[in-house]
Amino acid sequence: MTDQMLSGLRVVEGSAFVAAPSGGMHLALLGADVIRFDPIGGSIDFTRWPIAPSGTSIYWTALNKGKRSIQLDVRSDEGRELAQCIITAPGSDRGIFLTNFPARGWLSYDELAAKRADLIMVAITGSPDGATAVDYTVNAAVGYPLVTGPAAHTDPVNHVLPAWDVICGQQAALGILAAERYRNLHGAGQLVTLALSDVAMSTAANLGHVAEAEILGEQRPRLGNDLYGAFGRDFVTSDGERVIIIAISPKQWTSMLAATDTTEQVDALAAELSVDFGDEGERFEHRGRLFALIESWVGSHDLATVGAALESHRCCWGQYRDFLGMVSNDPRCSVANPMFQQVDQPGVGSVLSAGSPLRFAATGDVAVPPAPVLGAHTDEVLTELLGLSTSEIADLHDRGVVAGA
Amino acid sequence: MTDQMLSGLRVVEGSAFVAAPSGGMHLALLGADVIRFDPIGGSIDFTRWPIAPSGTSIYWTALNKGKRSIQLDVRSDEGRELAQCIITAPGSDRGIFLTNFPARGWLSYDELAAKRADLIMVAITGSPDGATAVDYTVNAAVGYPLVTGPAAHTDPVNHVLPAWDVICGQQAALGILAAERYRNLHGAGQLVTLALSDVAMSTAANLGHVAEAEILGEQRPRLGNDLYGAFGRDFVTSDGERVIIIAISPKQWTSMLAATDTTEQVDALAAELSVDFGDEGERFEHRGRLFALIESWVGSHDLATVGAALESHRCCWGQYRDFLGMVSNDPRCSVANPMFQQVDQPGVGSVLSAGSPLRFAATGDVAVPPAPVLGAHTDEVLTELLGLSTSEIADLHDRGVVAGA
Repeated sequence: MTDQMLSGLRVVEGSAFVAAPSGGMHLALLGADVIRFDPIGGSIDFTRWPIAPSGTSIYWTALNKGKRSIQLDVRSDEGRELAQCIITAPGSDRGIFLTNFPARGWLSYDELAAKRADLIMVAITGSPDGATAVDYTVNAAVGYPLVTGPAAHTDPVNHVLPAWDVICGQQAALGILAAERYRNLHGAGQLVTLALSDVAMSTAANLGHVAEAEILGEQRPRLGNDLYGAFGRDFVTSDGERVIIIAISPKQWTSMLAATDTTEQVDALAAELSVDFGDEGERFEHRGRLFALIESWVGSHDLATVGAALESHRCCWGQYRDFLGMVSNDPRCSVANPMFQQVDQPGVGSVLSAGSPLRFAATGDVAVPPAPVLGAHTDEVLTELLGLSTSEIADLHDRGVVAGA
Repeated sequence: MTDQMLSGLRVVEGSAFVAAPSGGMHLALLGADVIRFDPIGGSIDFTRWPIAPSGTSIYWTALNKGKRSIQLDVRSDEGRELAQCIITAPGSDRGIFLTNFPARGWLSYDELAAKRADLIMVAITGSPDGATAVDYTVNAAVGYPLVTGPAAHTDPVNHVLPAWDVICGQQAALGILAAERYRNLHGAGQLVTLALSDVAMSTAANLGHVAEAEILGEQRPRLGNDLYGAFGRDFVTSDGERVIIIAISPKQWTSMLAATDTTEQVDALAAELSVDFGDEGERFEHRGRLFALIESWVGSHDLATVGAALESHRCCWGQYRDFLGMVSNDPRCSVANPMFQQVDQPGVGSVLSAGSPLRFAATGDVAVPPAPVLGAHTDEVLTELLGLSTSEIADLHDRGVVAGA
């Protein structure tokens, strides 16, 4: 295993749900050896919906691809001791622990660092003070539900994509590589903490929402599907299909006008309003008038015609599709795209599975691995990392301290 | 500068908008030296909304904190040559280029690698084939707009958070650290490509939506604010405030029943329906009946009472707030949280600004830097990276090849 980008990197993961598992998975998909330990029978995310006909969780298998899996009785002292020894196993490429479990007691940094001083531990919490928070409660706190959705709607609109969990997982993976780089240079491990609410609130700040509130004293209004600050919205074609058209850059703007045959009308409107639509802010301020022109053109042509015109002018547009439509009709979501491969996933069957979206020229296309069967690597990990003998491992099984697949 | 996590790492960035700039910024916030070059006068994102009263873009400044800025006439051969020399400047900690510009011509990997063989270049595109796509068009393609929003709504609901751009930026930062790790081990640079649509489609696959479509042949219905597969939704208090309550884990479930005094009613309902609500899937399937019980309790108590009850039982809940409310009332979004600091941002004023959500014990709290004034580091970078003399730099200014602040 020296043929992948992160070959040689080893991470032990004690995790559940999305944030930590997805962070570990992104490292595994780049070739890191990620060992997830779970209580015997699986953690609380092991049967999370959606579920395949066999009862296997599609959710769990999709979020844990490429890892090794061990089952331990984490309620027993002996199981906890084994987990600690696996986390802190010696070796310069080891000693990295990713977790979203409470980092106290047997999983506290202090207790683990006593076993391995240069341990890197990335601990994900809900809030910075350690209070519980999940993607959905953080999302409520951060302002987006009240500006998402139809303009006339007054209730919050929750996101379906657990964006904060996904971003948090990415940050965790980034934190591991940054801390490993630091350890390679300076020899020191450390505790790295990452709060889900910090992920969300820093993102809102980075996108200007905090300054907008603080400096301008303004709450951005609910805009429905209108793009803020430039030109963009969804439009319905004459055959009832829906497209999004975006014009942020000057080129996107002039291309769109050419494609939709509205250059003259828009010029006349600019003269009428005495504005320069070369300024994206003006496009946004007068979007109602502009939308009407584009709406009229899109609404009088079918999708094929609209698409062909927009494509021929290299416009920035797209068709709305549901998940079934994406899987059935978008070649980017098919094996025509090397990122996607049909993977034989135990318990689920052959399923279109995604590797890392990062494509490294040095390693080329890599195979997308399935998720492990729970406990499939218990014996292997105990042998390899802890040097236990066959009889020692058999004894652990007999006493219910560990379990295999 | 050896006091931060990524001190010594240098990245040159040719970028605009969110994905690449946020990726570079996350490295800069961890101490990397990130040098963004822009055309003289700024790139097409330089005046993007929201805008401060001075005319300075809150958007641009929020997404480019901690970087150095140089202005070059990238339309001239000489400006392009300078940019290439900066990208490929010698030094073992240099030679990393992050871009979402078209990676062709003078910015092609081949042309740059001819100047520095071990160059690492992370090139972000819209689609894997290089076709244009932005967050909003990718989002339309990937299925979420048709399952987000009120259950009775039939039109797509665009996200306001540009989640794909943000995740893409994270991936780009991860790709840089992974490729630098590889270069440190093997001496080889490489081209790393990353398509925005791949980021979105891999995320949808990792969250089970692709398998749900392919294996189950099912499109997940639009659920409004209901959490899929477990118990969760928003509820209105007697004083008209709105909270979200989530119960995924067994502990969250029993805590919520205790806090809302509904244990007996829920037990009776379980008996009536002959189901076990210890199974999160059953909670989801019968959510209508369960929601009615919680709705009744929340609706008959004010926010203070609801919050106190949920807190005392350590439930997983949160209050909905808008951006103004978050900034005004949530201590996690204030200087009480070390991630947030009041930063004097030129053109904007003192503004609450976020550092990295990753907190590294080895470096402790670090100062959150402002974004640069455009071109503030032009001379410094030309001297430091290219060794140009004062008179050579003056000549470049005189001929309009470069510009300062």
